Amino acid sequence: MTKTVQLTTLHWDAALTVARAALVKAQELGIRVAVAVMDRGGNLLAFARDPNAPFHSSTIAQDKATTSAGFGLPTKQWWPVLEGMNSPGLLAGIAAVPRMVVFGGGVPVYVNGECVAGVGVSGGSEEEDEICARAGLAAAGLVAEPGKS
Amino acid sequence: MTKTVQLTTLHWDAALTVARAALVKAQELGIRVAVAVMDRGGNLLAFARDPNAPFHSSTIAQDKATTSAGFGLPTKQWWPVLEGMNSPGLLAGIAAVPRMVVFGGGVPVYVNGECVAGVGVSGGSEEEDEICARAGLAAAGLVAEPGKS
Amino acid sequence: MTKTVQLTTLHWDAALTVARAALVKAQELGIRVAVAVMDRGGNLLAFARDPNAPFHSSTIAQDKATTSAGFGLPTKQWWPVLEGMNSPGLLAGIAAVPRMVVFGGGVPVYVNGECVAGVGVSGGSEEEDEICARAGLAAAGLVAEPGKS
Amino acid sequence: MTKTVQLTTLHWDAALTVARAALVKAQELGIRVAVAVMDRGGNLLAFARDPNAPFHSSTIAQDKATTSAGFGLPTKQWWPVLEGMNSPGLLAGIAAVPRMVVFGGGVPVYVNGECVAGVGVSGGSEEEDEICARAGLAAAGLVAEPGKS
Repeated sequence: MTKTVQLTTLHWDAALTVARAALVKAQELGIRVAVAVMDRGGNLLAFARDPNAPFHSSTIAQDKATTSAGFGLPTKQWWPVLEGMNSPGLLAGIAAVPRMVVFGGGVPVYVNGECVAGVGVSGGSEEEDEICARAGLAAAGLVAEPGKS
Repeated sequence: MTKTVQLTTLHWDAALTVARAALVKAQELGIRVAVAVMDRGGNLLAFARDPNAPFHSSTIAQDKATTSAGFGLPTKQWWPVLEGMNSPGLLAGIAAVPRMVVFGGGVPVYVNGECVAGVGVSGGSEEEDEICARAGLAAAGLVAEPGKS
Repeated sequence: MTKTVQLTTLHWDAALTVARAALVKAQELGIRVAVAVMDRGGNLLAFARDPNAPFHSSTIAQDKATTSAGFGLPTKQWWPVLEGMNSPGLLAGIAAVPRMVVFGGGVPVYVNGECVAGVGVSGGSEEEDEICARAGLAAAGLVAEPGKS
Repeated sequence: MTKTVQLTTLHWDAALTVARAALVKAQELGIRVAVAVMDRGGNLLAFARDPNAPFHSSTIAQDKATTSAGFGLPTKQWWPVLEGMNSPGLLAGIAAVPRMVVFGGGVPVYVNGECVAGVGVSGGSEEEDEICARAGLAAAGLVAEPGKS
């Protein structure tokens, strides 16, 4: 009987590097954001927030990161898929799942083809938030797709 | 390294003046409401509730105030913007964010062009709620737009 | 069969008067507090907070008010009673009941011998907090004991 | 009527420097911890966690930081003060306040004599946790007492 399962998660120093680089990028873009790095168990690994970021951005950043870490996908991929189903009920139902985000700004973190964490940014537009999240990954030598590292 | 950031918040006496004037206006309109004044960190500054206001109005008033304080916008502006994006997924997703309200009745508080707090009223129609919130601001010599004070 | 029960609660304008007068007294004493007026159902009637009050004072003020409204007693009366029982287990158990406070700073509100609400103040010493709560009551012509109005 | 109040909070880059240095110190001590930097409104500014830290350390670190930021005191000062009062009721009551911690590991952050935030560490002994928190402050040129900067 196989007794154990190996999981891979992100080191705290890499997570902090992601958080800091995302906020540096936000500063360049002139936006005020929160950034969260979450593990696949929905627990926070690293976080940083501009004191002038909108209040809700802290929660949204954590939920984007959790959604990306959990499904191994950028959060922006959810809503076209759901809309394509042409089912407003399903759409609203999925959107209302606690800690689930179906719009852009969260990306997964892959190492050796394995999803090990997620990064979420909130406070700018969806596109700006994702730019910050990806800048965070790049600074730590991480990627958001399974085939690239 | 820059160590600190200066923030401006609302004095308790101004917040209480807002709360009282909003309830006086509600009485004139014949509606039963709760009114909340929240700071930009999502913490309550002042609150008042008609004992006959609907139970949920306390929470909704606080969430409207938090949403307005956080984004510096009246809550009623969210729904048309989101509908204009023609994206039911984004609409449902934003509407499901904890402590976020995407319908009318909350307005931000600006002093010298800076958003320092938010006011939320719940218990009447969206239009009535916003009338009460703005009556509260007027009584304290406050405004809901950045360019007016 | 008796079908209904009459309850008496506090008017919002009286509750706001209590809140404001408590904060004025706190300012005289040089302390930074939060004050809450709660009904007997554990729902907020009025609230005000000095932005420099300790973070926890908002919750403690509400819980003191709820405890006083629920039992019709000043919160400071709880702990000598519990200590007199010489039962550390009971003491810790009661102290851990959610939204229950066993130290001073909350007083009930009586009208015509009936407990109609509670007032809680937090941010100063227990004695200072109770002084503020009672100053709030006095300003609204209310009393904290059944036999006095 | 005074309309506004000025508050000072901590810059995100200083907060991240605190978090990283606290984890570096924990690594030197051979302990696995979480570290949180919270503002005075109970909102997270920065966070980092060793993936092998005990599960509860994330919450405890945030609550220690909130308690220190709110009262402007190291969390370890609460327990002897409460014990000195010789009142088990008060002790149990204070210990049960939500998001309040009455044991060591949290320290306030002072800048120019003003409390602007709090740092909390959890995962080691109380002494070890406080050593990590203070190492975090030192790395960012911050102090834990009002008279030192």
